[in-house]
Amino acid sequence: MPSQLAVIAIDAIQPQVVADFWCAVLGWHVVDEDTDIISIGPHDSSWPSIDVIAVPEGKTVKNRLHFDLRADGVSTSEELQRLLALGARRTDVGQGRDVSWVVLSDPEGNEFCLLSRSVQDVEDEK
Amino acid sequence: MPSQLAVIAIDAIQPQVVADFWCAVLGWHVVDEDTDIISIGPHDSSWPSIDVIAVPEGKTVKNRLHFDLRADGVSTSEELQRLLALGARRTDVGQGRDVSWVVLSDPEGNEFCLLSRSVQDVEDEK
Repeated sequence: MPSQLAVIAIDAIQPQVVADFWCAVLGWHVVDEDTDIISIGPHDSSWPSIDVIAVPEGKTVKNRLHFDLRADGVSTSEELQRLLALGARRTDVGQGRDVSWVVLSDPEGNEFCLLSRSVQDVEDEK
Repeated sequence: MPSQLAVIAIDAIQPQVVADFWCAVLGWHVVDEDTDIISIGPHDSSWPSIDVIAVPEGKTVKNRLHFDLRADGVSTSEELQRLLALGARRTDVGQGRDVSWVVLSDPEGNEFCLLSRSVQDVEDEK
């Protein structure tokens, strides 16, 4: 019987800003909140959720862990425009021009990617 | 229609070592493999999965993102022993002695926590 992946924790200088961003991106909501931690999750209570944790130090190097997202119900280009409008920034981590994904970063610079295939494309392949 | 959290990517100098470790920890298996990337996921194909990606550079600072695990079907202390036997190392990130979780790291030093409540405890509270 193995461990379950319960939570993905993100360190943040401004937890509210980071939590608000990821709620808007994923369509999630705040499920719990304490002085130094904001927990956000999907409405169906499935795991994993995300805990945004207050830390004093800022981000200094490219993250070793990052999220890859897929557009759900809209085209990837429409979703890209939505993410940029939410405050995501295009980010250069040396990916070059020939990759099929777009590298972005959240309000504290945490890199994430928008993959080119939509959720529906992936489901259709199963 | 928001984005779906599809993949959590982990940079690794030795992707096979890191992928093998997380497969053993989570009871997952390799779902796809390419030259520079090993994708692992649960047997029920639920998302998100993990992509372990080959990078030349090693880890230098505490990760901004980390996983929190919960023991599933065994006690937390039994699961801790299993994780240590798999190669997890106890790790000090300044958490002190009064926390309810155990901080560990994977073979490349990526921090993760084993939470004190089991999956069953959490389900019972719902």
